[in-house]
Amino acid sequence: MRSGCYPKEACGVFGIFGHAEAATLTYLGIYALQHRGQEAAGIVASDGKRLRQHRALGLVNDVFREETLKRLAGHAAIGHVRYSTMGETALANAQPIKVDYLRGSLAVCHNGNVVNALPLREELEQRGSIFTSTSDAEIVIHLIAHDENNDVTAAIPKALKRLEGAYSMLFLEENRLVAARDPHGWRPLCLGTLGNAIVVASETCAFDLVGAKYERDVEPGEIVEITSAGVRSSRPFEPTKQATCIFELVYFSRPDSFVFGRGVHAARKALGVELAREEDPGFTADMVIAVPDSSNSAALGYAEESGITFELGIIRSHYIGRTFIEPEQRIRAFGTRLKYNPVRDLIAGKSLVIVDDSIVRGTTSRKIIDIVRNAGAAEIHLRISCPPWRYPCYYGIDTPTREELIGSRLAADEIGRYIGVDSLRYLSLEGLRRAIGGDVMSEGDVGARFCSACFTGEYPTPIYEQYAKDMMAPKLFGDKMF
Amino acid sequence: MRSGCYPKEACGVFGIFGHAEAATLTYLGIYALQHRGQEAAGIVASDGKRLRQHRALGLVNDVFREETLKRLAGHAAIGHVRYSTMGETALANAQPIKVDYLRGSLAVCHNGNVVNALPLREELEQRGSIFTSTSDAEIVIHLIAHDENNDVTAAIPKALKRLEGAYSMLFLEENRLVAARDPHGWRPLCLGTLGNAIVVASETCAFDLVGAKYERDVEPGEIVEITSAGVRSSRPFEPTKQATCIFELVYFSRPDSFVFGRGVHAARKALGVELAREEDPGFTADMVIAVPDSSNSAALGYAEESGITFELGIIRSHYIGRTFIEPEQRIRAFGTRLKYNPVRDLIAGKSLVIVDDSIVRGTTSRKIIDIVRNAGAAEIHLRISCPPWRYPCYYGIDTPTREELIGSRLAADEIGRYIGVDSLRYLSLEGLRRAIGGDVMSEGDVGARFCSACFTGEYPTPIYEQYAKDMMAPKLFGDKMF
Amino acid sequence: MRSGCYPKEACGVFGIFGHAEAATLTYLGIYALQHRGQEAAGIVASDGKRLRQHRALGLVNDVFREETLKRLAGHAAIGHVRYSTMGETALANAQPIKVDYLRGSLAVCHNGNVVNALPLREELEQRGSIFTSTSDAEIVIHLIAHDENNDVTAAIPKALKRLEGAYSMLFLEENRLVAARDPHGWRPLCLGTLGNAIVVASETCAFDLVGAKYERDVEPGEIVEITSAGVRSSRPFEPTKQATCIFELVYFSRPDSFVFGRGVHAARKALGVELAREEDPGFTADMVIAVPDSSNSAALGYAEESGITFELGIIRSHYIGRTFIEPEQRIRAFGTRLKYNPVRDLIAGKSLVIVDDSIVRGTTSRKIIDIVRNAGAAEIHLRISCPPWRYPCYYGIDTPTREELIGSRLAADEIGRYIGVDSLRYLSLEGLRRAIGGDVMSEGDVGARFCSACFTGEYPTPIYEQYAKDMMAPKLFGDKMF
Amino acid sequence: MRSGCYPKEACGVFGIFGHAEAATLTYLGIYALQHRGQEAAGIVASDGKRLRQHRALGLVNDVFREETLKRLAGHAAIGHVRYSTMGETALANAQPIKVDYLRGSLAVCHNGNVVNALPLREELEQRGSIFTSTSDAEIVIHLIAHDENNDVTAAIPKALKRLEGAYSMLFLEENRLVAARDPHGWRPLCLGTLGNAIVVASETCAFDLVGAKYERDVEPGEIVEITSAGVRSSRPFEPTKQATCIFELVYFSRPDSFVFGRGVHAARKALGVELAREEDPGFTADMVIAVPDSSNSAALGYAEESGITFELGIIRSHYIGRTFIEPEQRIRAFGTRLKYNPVRDLIAGKSLVIVDDSIVRGTTSRKIIDIVRNAGAAEIHLRISCPPWRYPCYYGIDTPTREELIGSRLAADEIGRYIGVDSLRYLSLEGLRRAIGGDVMSEGDVGARFCSACFTGEYPTPIYEQYAKDMMAPKLFGDKMF
Repeated sequence: MRSGCYPKEACGVFGIFGHAEAATLTYLGIYALQHRGQEAAGIVASDGKRLRQHRALGLVNDVFREETLKRLAGHAAIGHVRYSTMGETALANAQPIKVDYLRGSLAVCHNGNVVNALPLREELEQRGSIFTSTSDAEIVIHLIAHDENNDVTAAIPKALKRLEGAYSMLFLEENRLVAARDPHGWRPLCLGTLGNAIVVASETCAFDLVGAKYERDVEPGEIVEITSAGVRSSRPFEPTKQATCIFELVYFSRPDSFVFGRGVHAARKALGVELAREEDPGFTADMVIAVPDSSNSAALGYAEESGITFELGIIRSHYIGRTFIEPEQRIRAFGTRLKYNPVRDLIAGKSLVIVDDSIVRGTTSRKIIDIVRNAGAAEIHLRISCPPWRYPCYYGIDTPTREELIGSRLAADEIGRYIGVDSLRYLSLEGLRRAIGGDVMSEGDVGARFCSACFTGEYPTPIYEQYAKDMMAPKLFGDKMF
Repeated sequence: MRSGCYPKEACGVFGIFGHAEAATLTYLGIYALQHRGQEAAGIVASDGKRLRQHRALGLVNDVFREETLKRLAGHAAIGHVRYSTMGETALANAQPIKVDYLRGSLAVCHNGNVVNALPLREELEQRGSIFTSTSDAEIVIHLIAHDENNDVTAAIPKALKRLEGAYSMLFLEENRLVAARDPHGWRPLCLGTLGNAIVVASETCAFDLVGAKYERDVEPGEIVEITSAGVRSSRPFEPTKQATCIFELVYFSRPDSFVFGRGVHAARKALGVELAREEDPGFTADMVIAVPDSSNSAALGYAEESGITFELGIIRSHYIGRTFIEPEQRIRAFGTRLKYNPVRDLIAGKSLVIVDDSIVRGTTSRKIIDIVRNAGAAEIHLRISCPPWRYPCYYGIDTPTREELIGSRLAADEIGRYIGVDSLRYLSLEGLRRAIGGDVMSEGDVGARFCSACFTGEYPTPIYEQYAKDMMAPKLFGDKMF
Repeated sequence: MRSGCYPKEACGVFGIFGHAEAATLTYLGIYALQHRGQEAAGIVASDGKRLRQHRALGLVNDVFREETLKRLAGHAAIGHVRYSTMGETALANAQPIKVDYLRGSLAVCHNGNVVNALPLREELEQRGSIFTSTSDAEIVIHLIAHDENNDVTAAIPKALKRLEGAYSMLFLEENRLVAARDPHGWRPLCLGTLGNAIVVASETCAFDLVGAKYERDVEPGEIVEITSAGVRSSRPFEPTKQATCIFELVYFSRPDSFVFGRGVHAARKALGVELAREEDPGFTADMVIAVPDSSNSAALGYAEESGITFELGIIRSHYIGRTFIEPEQRIRAFGTRLKYNPVRDLIAGKSLVIVDDSIVRGTTSRKIIDIVRNAGAAEIHLRISCPPWRYPCYYGIDTPTREELIGSRLAADEIGRYIGVDSLRYLSLEGLRRAIGGDVMSEGDVGARFCSACFTGEYPTPIYEQYAKDMMAPKLFGDKMF
Repeated sequence: MRSGCYPKEACGVFGIFGHAEAATLTYLGIYALQHRGQEAAGIVASDGKRLRQHRALGLVNDVFREETLKRLAGHAAIGHVRYSTMGETALANAQPIKVDYLRGSLAVCHNGNVVNALPLREELEQRGSIFTSTSDAEIVIHLIAHDENNDVTAAIPKALKRLEGAYSMLFLEENRLVAARDPHGWRPLCLGTLGNAIVVASETCAFDLVGAKYERDVEPGEIVEITSAGVRSSRPFEPTKQATCIFELVYFSRPDSFVFGRGVHAARKALGVELAREEDPGFTADMVIAVPDSSNSAALGYAEESGITFELGIIRSHYIGRTFIEPEQRIRAFGTRLKYNPVRDLIAGKSLVIVDDSIVRGTTSRKIIDIVRNAGAAEIHLRISCPPWRYPCYYGIDTPTREELIGSRLAADEIGRYIGVDSLRYLSLEGLRRAIGGDVMSEGDVGARFCSACFTGEYPTPIYEQYAKDMMAPKLFGDKMF
């Protein structure tokens, strides 16, 4: 029997081709994407003759030293940051993966999650493949290595066609960088230029730091091949419905990024605006407060639309590092308190609207509310800038099992009572549609362009039974999915 | 000849008496004060029989391990975080200092700056004292050690009367904790309770983290002696004018703290309100943006008063650690860019009011403006939530020499041109008075309760010539000051 | 084109089956084998259900912490230390390698060098295998993974039969530990017991530390399978001549180990004895000195046989860690001087026999002689306890190319002049035979039981041309080998 | 009440004046003295204008980086390594100590132990001195600082005259290096030259590494002042009997050093020779074995004199670093086993003479014997190359209390039974005299030139009662000493 550990791939990728300082710029690029993964970081660079790799557990700025970057010589590089998941496979799963095989050397890194990883892996193992990680990237490499084609440009689309699920993937050979995005397009992937060099990144904030210019997105289903001859685009996949991930806009991407063709901050503000519009007539409060920093934009939108004053009622500490030592005589809501502190004299005796972007298990929300309540808030109305999160994501957002998702077990009012607020409201699915569709979607086509499986359970792909079991959420798949 | 290195003492202090986990709570207390000093951290604890010390360079959470805290056994402890200054004396200057002397053991830590340190040191050296640091705390210890009194409670006020300048100081003996604040009261010092234990801290945010209750400030000129017999207060100094530091409110303290009897966030908002009131009639813009995070409150106040929309136009990265590796092909405004990134689609083509809390040398402001300008801002109106900073602070805020202070060399419009903005305005001194005095001061008495020497050059104490030379700002003191 | 980097596998292995603290004992076992590899260390343990791995660059005692060993739960484990080789592949080449494949999980570690690694690798790549390291262990795993057998006990011998060259290899599955030694038996591998547990190790010194009892060697060509059912031995290979490595006795193993059925210290003493016997009649000197510590035994043998006093004329420093900072005004023989210092008053004016175990490039020998000469030695007679090293080793001793081996370019007297000694003598091949064969070999059969390729160039296996080129010693293989 | 922690000062010192790379050479000098102290290391350098300091816990090579040495600019430097003692004061006690005082800056480091430290400290505290360490060096600095002289060259001898006990001390001012050795001369201190530069060091092995030439010892009672004007010697003390420390020769110094005018290796051999001479007639054994490495020389002397073969029967491991992880199922003599392993096939069934240099508590000796016995030794005759250690050392050798010294509680035969040997003999005091006096002392004057207090209890100075109590050996001082 095999181990059932398939950690989700919530990550960031960056690549550059045609720049004398490829590794150093990649290091900065993945630093700008650090919010997408704090567990591990890695870079593979090519000097045209060979690939050199460095990857380790830790933050980008701890993993790379000047001498390391110097060793990663060459004109092309790809880099990766990886989200924190537990367990021993941590380093083995760090990316980019670099291998030698029939056609030479190849490095791959990846953001997303392949839902048919298990059957593919079983098939490959039957053919004699060995696996040193649980990473999807390793599966792709095996598929490519088993291809009889002489050229990787032919082998890559053939391999990718075998995958179902989400991937924004970068491939590096000695003299070629290939960027690919799955046909549904769950995860973002952007294309830019820096002088004569070509850059790709999960989010545009990485372009901003290195001074690159955003050109366009790598489209869902598009494969972009970058060589010294230039950029060549192909679309080898069957046309399919897009399913870009709403959570990239709601929570995951940086507010100063431009993903899926829209500004993240603006999208979040629109969610806040819709949230305010859905309030009962006459509802009001003394102030609107965000759970900083990820909910700042939505709270601002809510405040603008509602006319209730936006206030900085919770201050976030940014020094938090490794585990803190707690006194034996326990401090209430200790971990949350290290991170958040209310502005006591501002909120004491006041009625507050607190805007947050999601409730996962409910435990953190409950602690934040406890802290705010203890600071003297008279009324607390919690508002969530998306619908209840009821189903696990299989497409690259690290999520708990369905049973752990409080939204799958309790109704909003029950959740509100558990968390301890005077009222709790989620943005409706319609509100979400209005907000996100305001400028890029016509009403009614959520599911067409955005994936809302986490709210609706309508997964755009089949989810394999064994995989589902590995996610420890057997009920979800009993009769519904297959 | 001696070295002229007198680093400023911008620091945070925390103390607790009467708690079984004194060291662990002190560790959390100084963690909450981390913004007041990131260079070094230290704790001295007492178990009633002996003092134990640990101090090192680094952040609180790196300096202390669980086993270290266990070794720091006892019911009483004081802790310290120290601001980043350069040079070899760094570790020697880490506090608390702990010594053995005539009356046993004594530990001292300190926030502030003693302006007659040099003559006191010379006097003490004439009497045979040796110095291992450049810290004011060491001077005080020598004064106490040279006292013929049998009791430290008599020796402390005698020693402190010799000091001129700013100090919020904690003393720890085996069975006594003493907290003292200079008669002018430049630096904050708060008194609280945690069950039966007594706590003292630079700011109330430290109380919030450990769950302590703020009781009152240690008053300017007050010495509070804490033993198992309780708290005893004395006021041994000649009455003098208060001179609490405006910069604690403008910039230095955490917005969720309550210092000098007022909420910091509220005070900063009031500065922003006054800043807006001082605009020319008819002045307007598309949005108000803060330089995050320290200017958020003032920007919010400005937006509320002006009616111009508050926006999150600049995103701050919080992963910055040690020095970054820059490509040889330099990136414009590199260091600033690592920290700040504009929300491009929000500000492109817009006229912005950017609110910041101070301009020191002007170089960072210039880079921020450059980045914002490159993101497409049409007009940039920079607003500073205090008057021009023209004079060095000798009372515990780490400042450059007068010559380096751009406000001492150039007029506002010249500074604006240097920085590259369409307009630059500072809050007027009168505006500052209105804001800060709005709830605690009557008009006209700035200087009575708050020290505004950095704006006006009216230092509440004499500044000794040699000291001034050590500050490398000879012109300031030529004939003006003495 | 692929990279030509095939670092030699000079390593140590340890395994244990049937002990509740398998990982901790493995950690101690590889600590005792630390002299066989200081670059990297790793352990894979099994709790009967899954394999857990930890490996990193560094010394054993730095790589493993108590919590790491706790995580490596289970009753069986294998461990590995790796010799220092340069380059980026360092971590990827750390062992044991652990993979998931068709039949579950498998971990492998290895001491030796497979000489047909390149053609095997090419064949495997043709079948779609990918390689993340340059380790022979990975080749073996691929061979096993491509086997259609259902059981690894059948697949292992089939895979090993494909290998030519040297390997002492350990395999770990969830409930099985397999130890295999190549038919020529270059590298040692010992079998022991610790209570009911079975242990295997490169050298018996590892048994001594954990308190295990040496039972016997794993024989050349033997595969030992250890399960809860007991130990099962098989000999699936065609009978072939043994070729155990003389250098294990001359230099590589610890003197307190028992390898190839004999004590290492005793073997080295015998070399020294023969060296003394080969001196010209009437040759004498004031004292015999070893280059400590590896030549101590041979020097003692020389002294006993010659009647010349054994002396401690060179003292070795053991604090050497990472690179040392050298003054700009260079110190003569700096690196060597950090490690060796002569006892000046002992050797001044004396004639010395200095015994060393080998001369590789000649540069270190030259520096040692320079230091000793500067301490006032009147005459220096260098004696080497084996014949001139003239040919690279392809069987697991890390060696320079043939051109770098001073013994392949110069005659003994030329080398002596280069090094700066009054005379230089190597042990003759006959002397070596007498010493090593004294108790286990009949005269004339060197090559039968021991491999002497490094002295004679008579390699027991063909060496593939491409591989030879990768070793950058083209002359060696011109017409002789193929 | 004060803490009773007066750790012994077993250390090494190095100084250099007049060399452009003073700090780097000092770093190498204290590296060569690493065996004298592994706990902490420090350097203070002078560029003629100011002193710069770096000190930290750890080995020399870990404490200093290239950039640290660059910062320690200048032509003069002193350095220090400190022996491992426990406790919190570790870093505070690291040397050199550097202070600012009346006459400028001064740094001091020290090897030895001042026996009237406590009354001096009390006197100084009465005068207002504060102490941050328990180091003797701090006492000397206070004495100098309290001196009314204008010049440190006058103040140093005045201060040193107040000290009783052992000190080899280095002082560094901006333009002067002073080396002083107490009148009894317990600890060594050597003077040498390196081109035009002057060097001082605890042992000559430090000169060898940097390429300096040994000129002579700093004599007992001599103060050597080194400036750009040259070297000036003075002898300001009352003439007194020398009392150089026998243990420097027996155990503490490196065998390749020349201390007290003699080679350490030769002195130890002479001890071994005398030990052999004291055997009963007809006593013999199969071989002589050293407990490596410190007893190698004595064992060699014993073997030469007795005619019994010298053998390498115990192998020492040199990889030992921090604490090792021991299995829960304890391994017999675990800690000792990590360090020592017998050569099993050599000693099995043999009768052994094992030579060691001392027995302190007896516990380690017992474990070594246990290991050797388990390896099959038939007879074990333990021989100690000095008389029984019965009294604590107060002059700079780190020793346990008298009660812990097994030699003070048990007779030799009882100790032998405790340790588990077939016979135990110590070198007699007369044998020691013969050995050490063979070339430098006339018979009968032990105590005149060498201190033998650890064997005889005849301390050359009074030992103060309080100090004795702090050493926790009250019985020693009951009626005997005062």
